[in-house]
Amino acid sequence: MSNPVVVEVLRGDRVESAHRGAGAVVDAGGRTAFAFGDVDRPIYPRSAVKALQALPLIESGAADRLGLTEAEIALACASHAGEDAHVAAASAMLAKAGRDVGALECGAHWPSSETAARALARRGGTPSALHNNCSGKHAGFICLACAEGVDPAGYVSPDHSTQRAVTAALADMTGAALRAETRAIDGCSIPAYAIPLRALAHGFARFATGQGLPPQRARAAARIRAAVAANPAMVAGEGRFDTEVMTLLGARVFTKTGAEGVWCAALPELGLGLAVKADDGAKRAAQTVIAALLRRFGGFSDVLGPFAAPPLLNWNGIAVGALRPSGALA
Amino acid sequence: MSNPVVVEVLRGDRVESAHRGAGAVVDAGGRTAFAFGDVDRPIYPRSAVKALQALPLIESGAADRLGLTEAEIALACASHAGEDAHVAAASAMLAKAGRDVGALECGAHWPSSETAARALARRGGTPSALHNNCSGKHAGFICLACAEGVDPAGYVSPDHSTQRAVTAALADMTGAALRAETRAIDGCSIPAYAIPLRALAHGFARFATGQGLPPQRARAAARIRAAVAANPAMVAGEGRFDTEVMTLLGARVFTKTGAEGVWCAALPELGLGLAVKADDGAKRAAQTVIAALLRRFGGFSDVLGPFAAPPLLNWNGIAVGALRPSGALA
Repeated sequence: MSNPVVVEVLRGDRVESAHRGAGAVVDAGGRTAFAFGDVDRPIYPRSAVKALQALPLIESGAADRLGLTEAEIALACASHAGEDAHVAAASAMLAKAGRDVGALECGAHWPSSETAARALARRGGTPSALHNNCSGKHAGFICLACAEGVDPAGYVSPDHSTQRAVTAALADMTGAALRAETRAIDGCSIPAYAIPLRALAHGFARFATGQGLPPQRARAAARIRAAVAANPAMVAGEGRFDTEVMTLLGARVFTKTGAEGVWCAALPELGLGLAVKADDGAKRAAQTVIAALLRRFGGFSDVLGPFAAPPLLNWNGIAVGALRPSGALA
Repeated sequence: MSNPVVVEVLRGDRVESAHRGAGAVVDAGGRTAFAFGDVDRPIYPRSAVKALQALPLIESGAADRLGLTEAEIALACASHAGEDAHVAAASAMLAKAGRDVGALECGAHWPSSETAARALARRGGTPSALHNNCSGKHAGFICLACAEGVDPAGYVSPDHSTQRAVTAALADMTGAALRAETRAIDGCSIPAYAIPLRALAHGFARFATGQGLPPQRARAAARIRAAVAANPAMVAGEGRFDTEVMTLLGARVFTKTGAEGVWCAALPELGLGLAVKADDGAKRAAQTVIAALLRRFGGFSDVLGPFAAPPLLNWNGIAVGALRPSGALA
């Protein structure tokens, strides 16, 4: 990987650290509007594709048969912070499928929200799989299985019918071949398939517009976008980029982070999809890059300016440095 | 920065992320035994030089005049996790100087130990400056000032006599000119001076051996090394690399992390100093590199093997990948 430096971390006037990366902005017809770095090497999109993985839940009719709310559909696309509302919604989804926390196969971890984690500790609690940032996605998988009359047990396996439907949707949307050779295991134990950034951006342009999709899928994509836009607090959490930006901009932007420095986004009005990855896996780098790209291509300078060049404050609140996009993104 | 890739992060068989970096292994005479990347560009060593910054506390006689224990001297060199023992020792140091938490100018943050943070939350507490990972270093500065009859107020300023003594020791040990032009502000508000990795490694070789140092400083360095070796739990915390490695290897290794992907170390028996920085600031990268270097140059394969190629486990405890040194470090 010899991708360009895309974000510099300044302390005082000096570059203390620097992040390399790649990214693509693609329209629904597959035309690349902008790219930097190697956007054809397959990378693991991780949680950045949860909205695409949620398509079968909607287009199968499972969400409607179980009566999922729009907030719950948003949670199925979330990497949530483990706040009370997230835990309650994941629990409610499982109840609608006739299951409970015991059906989740994602593993448990403390809420990623430090506030939520401390509140849980303060009341003497310990985390369950409901607090796992992926519990909404997993609850969605379980809802899909149950609504289809399938035993959800083992739904994280690539061979389970639910996971096969999820993988097929991801392959169709991105045009990427998702084979065992490009498969690894994600943090929550579901399959992680490597997909080029250019294909991911194309997939999100199609997700944003419905262009080139069968009508049922296009409707499902629009419904997911609307559900997320109406419930941005469900998708991440208080103070998180995805929640904050979609709260400010509503349905004009869809944005979703993934582990190891991945970010995918869409600009529905402009028919563009975006996908970036920091070579080193740094979230701060990917967030700065996606903010810079959304600002440039979406024209949201006022809203996204602060996210594209965030100051670094020390423990006394003194501004000691800043992040800044560099190179082709400067 | 176009330093080589030094650590690869694998998911399955595929490189998911990669870290670039630079590092140097230097002897006390200033001979470079091994180097990769640009080791002459000044970088901020951050907390990796706390042991050098603690030299004035010892060589001035301040530590003895105030009756600091060896554990407290170790804490003065620490980036501690905010465990109860760390907080108690920092508090005790301040009491010996006739001060309390109010004298600390480092700012407050929750313990970096999640266990300690949750325990604090569980008992309804909130963090103070004593929980700041730098509180031991700051308490040491305050002890130095008070023992010398100087008002500690403003000790974080580059112009305060205490900070001038600390800066002079750092400059003398590394041979680097520490000027206002290479100065920024650290996370705890003290000055952060940029110093080349080669000079840092040389400084730690001199710290490790006393070679070329005035007798009083050589004795102070030996005392700090002994204090840290006898109290490795003070320097970082449970499960942290520095604590674990020095618990296993005692005085044969000195190792200290710094923010933004810096690590410094010393092998006293071999007379070598080491300094590394990950370009992107990633701690996981710097830790893997320093472990690989200590394994290679120190011959501690059994102890350091697991740290130099740590597995990545997911939330279900499944091994989904690993970190591995690459390029010149493979």
